Amino acid sequence: MKTYRHRVRVHWGDADPAKIVFYPNYFIWFDQSALYLFESVGLGWNALMEKYGVPGLPIVEAKARFLAPCKFGEEIVVETHVAKWNEKTLELSHVVMNGTTRAVEGYEIRIWAKADETGKLKALAIPPEIRAAFE
Amino acid sequence: MKTYRHRVRVHWGDADPAKIVFYPNYFIWFDQSALYLFESVGLGWNALMEKYGVPGLPIVEAKARFLAPCKFGEEIVVETHVAKWNEKTLELSHVVMNGTTRAVEGYEIRIWAKADETGKLKALAIPPEIRAAFE
Amino acid sequence: MKTYRHRVRVHWGDADPAKIVFYPNYFIWFDQSALYLFESVGLGWNALMEKYGVPGLPIVEAKARFLAPCKFGEEIVVETHVAKWNEKTLELSHVVMNGTTRAVEGYEIRIWAKADETGKLKALAIPPEIRAAFE
Amino acid sequence: MKTYRHRVRVHWGDADPAKIVFYPNYFIWFDQSALYLFESVGLGWNALMEKYGVPGLPIVEAKARFLAPCKFGEEIVVETHVAKWNEKTLELSHVVMNGTTRAVEGYEIRIWAKADETGKLKALAIPPEIRAAFE
Repeated sequence: MKTYRHRVRVHWGDADPAKIVFYPNYFIWFDQSALYLFESVGLGWNALMEKYGVPGLPIVEAKARFLAPCKFGEEIVVETHVAKWNEKTLELSHVVMNGTTRAVEGYEIRIWAKADETGKLKALAIPPEIRAAFE
Repeated sequence: MKTYRHRVRVHWGDADPAKIVFYPNYFIWFDQSALYLFESVGLGWNALMEKYGVPGLPIVEAKARFLAPCKFGEEIVVETHVAKWNEKTLELSHVVMNGTTRAVEGYEIRIWAKADETGKLKALAIPPEIRAAFE
Repeated sequence: MKTYRHRVRVHWGDADPAKIVFYPNYFIWFDQSALYLFESVGLGWNALMEKYGVPGLPIVEAKARFLAPCKFGEEIVVETHVAKWNEKTLELSHVVMNGTTRAVEGYEIRIWAKADETGKLKALAIPPEIRAAFE
Repeated sequence: MKTYRHRVRVHWGDADPAKIVFYPNYFIWFDQSALYLFESVGLGWNALMEKYGVPGLPIVEAKARFLAPCKFGEEIVVETHVAKWNEKTLELSHVVMNGTTRAVEGYEIRIWAKADETGKLKALAIPPEIRAAFE
């Protein structure tokens, strides 16, 4: 199972008046780490578009539980892997480690979809070689 | 039951290369709408700090399901209410309406907590008048 | 001379650990106010693309001077007008008022340009009716 | 003369519907690179507060000229150095290189200031050892 470790510095603009990360930023970092994971097996969004005609992996659902705050200046790591493969969707697990502290845990569900002739996205079965690339 | 309707314009910088809202922005709007709801009953974060010594309502968990994309230039509404009161936490429901389309639905769980002498937040029972303010 | 007054609430996520606006946000609000000004005369980015084939007004230069900090919770106003028309560019003046305090003053220079056959933007003379729309 | 080279990946959420960087992000990266430069000589914001009682280096003025667009997925470098020392302020030069292309050039003017007894920032002379640290 491939895991990507996305190292993130908590910058001044990421922290709020309570001096801790403003929570929507964690989802920004989840999104970045999802792409890095796919790029690590040669399947970045541009590659997916060229090879399969799918515009990245659109988000269907996202959730996070905030276990411990991260502060301005800290270096954290988003650990990302595909936790579950469904027929047309996949679930990415994201855990934010702040040193040895588990700070945030969450997931994203993303869909394999192509635009039809009207431009509307339509879900399709994920090709088996995509799944195989992560084994 | 009090509901706040937070009108949001999808600005150029909110949209991604697919011309739709970059999803972490919905959580930014949830966070804004949560505060607006509390302000609508006189309990903004500054008021909570002055009256109760609690630094706003820290986030514990957040989730969203993305049902239909919102595009640059559209005017959307985040409809927010307290869906559930627990002893020390509360759950805010957020629904994003794009015209008559239900675009996003999600929730935030937030905690009633005070810093102890070491600065660490400790959950406390939500005073009954807080809950009553929304009835 | 048309002026647009863009009312902005300083949200929790806009403020930094010093409890004041993180300065790049002022440029986000400049960008929003530029569009609102153009929309106020019927020339939003989508209208410009349909009528003239220009993809909004790409930015060439931006500057701001920060005179007084704005804090979480404050309601500020970005006052925007076209300060100067050049042949192929225009200069938008932006002043941020925080009550009666002049908090920020800045400008954006934007260009009138179309993509050539290779996709590269090429500056063109601004049609006279665009300028006339603001008089 | 010390220069910091801040490597930045253009993420999905940094790009706008035109598929290029939304310009306020460059100022976010300027701000990050300013701190990294100061940290590279042991003078990060936390260190400045502890040693000198100054809360980082508040921004006074910022400007950027946008010479060439940067696109989603590109790796760019913000090259930052102190271009000018004044009595109470300093000017940071920032150049964004996208491969061999000079994409953006700008500056930030920041001030050496302490809060007085009312909490208002008051500019003071920059200690000579701060300047010396960059030589």
